[in-house]
Amino acid sequence: MLELFLIGIGTGNPDHITRQAEKAIEQADLVLLPHKDDSKAELAQVRLTLLESLAVQEPRIAHFDMPVRRQQGDDYDQQVDEWHDAIAQRWNECLSSHLPAGFGRVALLVWGDPALYDSTLRIASRLGLSKAQVHVVPGITSMQVLCSAHGIALNEIGAPFLVTTGRQLRESGWPQGINTLVVMLDGQSSYEQLTEPDIDIFWGAYLGMPQQILMQGRLAEVKDSISAKRQQARQLHGWIMDIYLLRRR
Amino acid sequence: MLELFLIGIGTGNPDHITRQAEKAIEQADLVLLPHKDDSKAELAQVRLTLLESLAVQEPRIAHFDMPVRRQQGDDYDQQVDEWHDAIAQRWNECLSSHLPAGFGRVALLVWGDPALYDSTLRIASRLGLSKAQVHVVPGITSMQVLCSAHGIALNEIGAPFLVTTGRQLRESGWPQGINTLVVMLDGQSSYEQLTEPDIDIFWGAYLGMPQQILMQGRLAEVKDSISAKRQQARQLHGWIMDIYLLRRR
Repeated sequence: MLELFLIGIGTGNPDHITRQAEKAIEQADLVLLPHKDDSKAELAQVRLTLLESLAVQEPRIAHFDMPVRRQQGDDYDQQVDEWHDAIAQRWNECLSSHLPAGFGRVALLVWGDPALYDSTLRIASRLGLSKAQVHVVPGITSMQVLCSAHGIALNEIGAPFLVTTGRQLRESGWPQGINTLVVMLDGQSSYEQLTEPDIDIFWGAYLGMPQQILMQGRLAEVKDSISAKRQQARQLHGWIMDIYLLRRR
Repeated sequence: MLELFLIGIGTGNPDHITRQAEKAIEQADLVLLPHKDDSKAELAQVRLTLLESLAVQEPRIAHFDMPVRRQQGDDYDQQVDEWHDAIAQRWNECLSSHLPAGFGRVALLVWGDPALYDSTLRIASRLGLSKAQVHVVPGITSMQVLCSAHGIALNEIGAPFLVTTGRQLRESGWPQGINTLVVMLDGQSSYEQLTEPDIDIFWGAYLGMPQQILMQGRLAEVKDSISAKRQQARQLHGWIMDIYLLRRR
């Protein structure tokens, strides 16, 4: 039987890995390792170092190039759909060439946790596997590392919090009745558009990695500095991954 | 200097622990280990087993009895406040008797993650330590284990989700404009009160532990079975910890 393990590995700090993830990686017959454009070579290297630390070497690693999502047009859902099809196709090619007999344990390393704003589960659903063949191993997410780095809790006592995206924040504004928002996938510094007074922001980039940056304060007072820092860091490293928590006072 | 490490250890499966948490525990001079009433002795045992696996033994462990929260009256915030004061007092007693010189590394093991519906950070803030003396190590949360066990994602593509409590769900109902709710701290099966059609529930109890139970389906069709199962399991084990995700179709 073919078994697929989608393994959360945390946010780039090798010490985020759990025992469960270590075991799943060590026991894998094959690890699928995607490569993106050169600007993210650093991230591919983090994964390779992790695999080395668990004694996973060639030929147990199947490298493949990640397809690029078509970005023209406003048919976002369709773009994502096509992109996931193309990725599933690459996975299938790796499986055919590396496990021609059609059985074995296949691992995919996922930043953060496969359950949180990650498409791996949806891509896996295209392979025609049964539920028993797909296993998810949770990993430390960037929102947890953000909170631990700032020494704050996600929620106020007994209160709810919303996890959302930059796009949602821009399109829907601050949702009613909720004091805490965690904003992910925000390439456009959407916090800049908020005009509510008395909001605190806790921002972090490259969380868990040596180049980690943290900034916090009253949104109106620090948003310009955060945006400037963000742009500067992005130029320096060639890429950025960041996240922030907003809380009404 | 006294340093306090609040360490997320996951939901009861020793394999949830991260390398970062392992190191923090191994390097601790003292581990504060709370004991609750006998019905939760099982949970204390999970922690002891974890400590043993990391070679942490007496006298590096300070056992203490958890104070009980006053439950009379409707002054919930005040009750919580008094309770946190009482816990901080116990911590201080442990520190005075075990680390009389006033320095060392002190660890507290937290179920899940210290950032998520946990009071450890707020109790720690009562000790008068500086920010540099308090360290948080993230751990796998029950909402992640729920999703991994059911093989589902927390969010729909690009969509937000709300993390909330049973009390909030009962008092405020289903929030506008959000399709996915994760409900924690619900001792009263608050999902029973929802009348919206076309909601799916993904429920789990004792997540990550050998006695784990999972149920899922259309809320209207499965809610009675879940409530019956919940009551039965609670009687059998003497305690229950459960969580669920609700999603509009």
